Amino acid sequence: MKTNQNYATLPKNYLFSAVAEKTRAFQKANPERSIIKLSIGDVSRPLPSVVVTALRKACTEMGKSKTFRGYGPEIGYPWLRKAIAEFYTQQYQVKLAPEEVIISDGAKSDLSNLLDIFDPQATVAMYDPVYPVYLETNLMLGRQPQFFYATAENDFLPLPDESIKADIIYLCNPANPTGVCYNRAQLQQWVDFARKHQAVILYDGAYACFIQDSHLPKSIFEIDGACECAIEVGSLSKMAGFTGVRCGYTIVPKQLCYQGVKLNQLWCRRQATKFNGVSYIVQRGAEAVFSSAGLLAVQKNIAYYQRNLRLICRTLQALGWQYYGGEHSPYVWVRCPQQMTSWQCFDFLLKTTGIVCTPGVGFGVGGENYVRLTGFNSYANTRLACQRLLQLKK
Amino acid sequence: MKTNQNYATLPKNYLFSAVAEKTRAFQKANPERSIIKLSIGDVSRPLPSVVVTALRKACTEMGKSKTFRGYGPEIGYPWLRKAIAEFYTQQYQVKLAPEEVIISDGAKSDLSNLLDIFDPQATVAMYDPVYPVYLETNLMLGRQPQFFYATAENDFLPLPDESIKADIIYLCNPANPTGVCYNRAQLQQWVDFARKHQAVILYDGAYACFIQDSHLPKSIFEIDGACECAIEVGSLSKMAGFTGVRCGYTIVPKQLCYQGVKLNQLWCRRQATKFNGVSYIVQRGAEAVFSSAGLLAVQKNIAYYQRNLRLICRTLQALGWQYYGGEHSPYVWVRCPQQMTSWQCFDFLLKTTGIVCTPGVGFGVGGENYVRLTGFNSYANTRLACQRLLQLKK
Repeated sequence: MKTNQNYATLPKNYLFSAVAEKTRAFQKANPERSIIKLSIGDVSRPLPSVVVTALRKACTEMGKSKTFRGYGPEIGYPWLRKAIAEFYTQQYQVKLAPEEVIISDGAKSDLSNLLDIFDPQATVAMYDPVYPVYLETNLMLGRQPQFFYATAENDFLPLPDESIKADIIYLCNPANPTGVCYNRAQLQQWVDFARKHQAVILYDGAYACFIQDSHLPKSIFEIDGACECAIEVGSLSKMAGFTGVRCGYTIVPKQLCYQGVKLNQLWCRRQATKFNGVSYIVQRGAEAVFSSAGLLAVQKNIAYYQRNLRLICRTLQALGWQYYGGEHSPYVWVRCPQQMTSWQCFDFLLKTTGIVCTPGVGFGVGGENYVRLTGFNSYANTRLACQRLLQLKK
Repeated sequence: MKTNQNYATLPKNYLFSAVAEKTRAFQKANPERSIIKLSIGDVSRPLPSVVVTALRKACTEMGKSKTFRGYGPEIGYPWLRKAIAEFYTQQYQVKLAPEEVIISDGAKSDLSNLLDIFDPQATVAMYDPVYPVYLETNLMLGRQPQFFYATAENDFLPLPDESIKADIIYLCNPANPTGVCYNRAQLQQWVDFARKHQAVILYDGAYACFIQDSHLPKSIFEIDGACECAIEVGSLSKMAGFTGVRCGYTIVPKQLCYQGVKLNQLWCRRQATKFNGVSYIVQRGAEAVFSSAGLLAVQKNIAYYQRNLRLICRTLQALGWQYYGGEHSPYVWVRCPQQMTSWQCFDFLLKTTGIVCTPGVGFGVGGENYVRLTGFNSYANTRLACQRLLQLKK
């Protein structure tokens, strides 16, 4: 018996575990210090009451014979698939059929599991710095992905060129970790490139709800031709505070097809065989998110985080620190002051301000000399963090 | 771009979809007929109130700033892992550390995803007739599993012999679909065989709660040496009515190790990278299942299904139809009368009695000439079904 030897090629610690470990050690050594986590991308606002009401109602249903539900459809209840399809039509002017929306327990699972439906020999390209899950799930398959670099020179928005040779291209927009956002013309370049080269774009739209400019595309399917070359993964985590509730979805257009094989059918087959669907309770909560009251309530939470982000950005401006993102994304990508490396800056911020950031280099070599901050903490904590940051100016 | 060509080798319809499709067609053609599903293994009893209360409380917590929870540990909250470890100690006299219990959204996901941590070239053996998920997840990887046959000659309890050459061996006990159950000496043979050949046993214990004889092992870890060669997958689906709530767990012993690689570490790494944990709400519900009030309540539901099973077995005896299982399992494995094939018997039962069964051949060639019935319907429906069956005698 042999285990999967590719696991030996993985970085020993998952980035966020390493950050947590260092933070714990610092707190232990300095129990009197107050620590503020502007690091991991977790939400802090509670669920809106309209969602809690729906969740509780579903729990009650599960306790009564007449309304109890056993196995649901592995790919999600039709009413939730319909609600999301309608959301896309109403909010993004993207016409989807409910059959194109497949419900899951979250974007991370889907982005990982989608690899199952492609040729094991398929080649992969992704940006760097990158969300570690894209990279590590490919390393687990023994693949060496090709990187295209997001740098200050291209405003952290790399565009396709003929040096990229890949069957599968990962895009995250707005981007994690850099917080920047492609415009329509830039995304069109990616779609045109993918179609020309018969590649598929795995499009992670988990942060679309943060886009404030109505001219910026919120879905890849706003781009001409995308339904012939893209799969979009969406999440309720950041949009509706579902990081602990767990619900996401993947959109696989019906016309998406390679060598006569329809990807929508393949993905549904994968999910029906290897997954048993999302909790009925959770799906009822998700349905409430897409109601008009739900959308209004989650928009308030997003506005709350955006106020934090404006404060962070203003603070960085006052410090004269260079940064990207923060406007259409929950992430602010900060150039480390004084040529510090990412981990030096992590240690510096922790020691001087008690702020926990995420070292950019944890997202790939292209992230060196940057750190990532997020707008997800409370306003009070964010304000306190910014006050401490401003002290560094003196 | 090429898709995963192995998907083309999969049976076109997932067994249960085919049964559902045939049933729908029959109902459409015969709208006046009453149909009773003794087919798919889904529960019908609502959740116990102690579980509903815990679920609702967790929903409420998620709506308040002070008690809101975001991302939880990918491998499950420590309190749930501890509750399950204690359950094993108290109920099965199996000593587990909480770190050996990894929480998931269900046994189907885990049994599928566990393949990720083994060598892609690993060889696989499984019994036939078999739960289709074991087979199809391997077909998706391009593997041709070896089968060992469960037949009337071995009482549907195949034992190891030197013809079996595999790195990974699937066992389901009590067995799906045949409803039979290994005794301690028989399981010991499998454990000894796996240890001798450095194989790993993927042990599906999803139906352990149905074992009524205290002398029969309810966990593979009751068997000497199993912690050196087995992974056990458990589920709250059948035990606690969680088919629509979604929670399961996988036990990977700390000492389980091949060529120096610890499988517990590998599985935790897999889950931390490709999964984001089970809903906090669901985990609180699961925790309530393992409370003393919870265990008492779920035992009542299991006893309810067992009454159904006794009725089905008595009916089959009265008809003079040969059957297996039904005593320590929710499944009754029925020899088709009059040399009918499985699908002939399916059609026969549907037409004459309105009963939906699962054709045994859907579980593999070894299931031909058998059908599977379950005790999961309501008592009223089960009684009605049995009355209709008895009519066949006249």
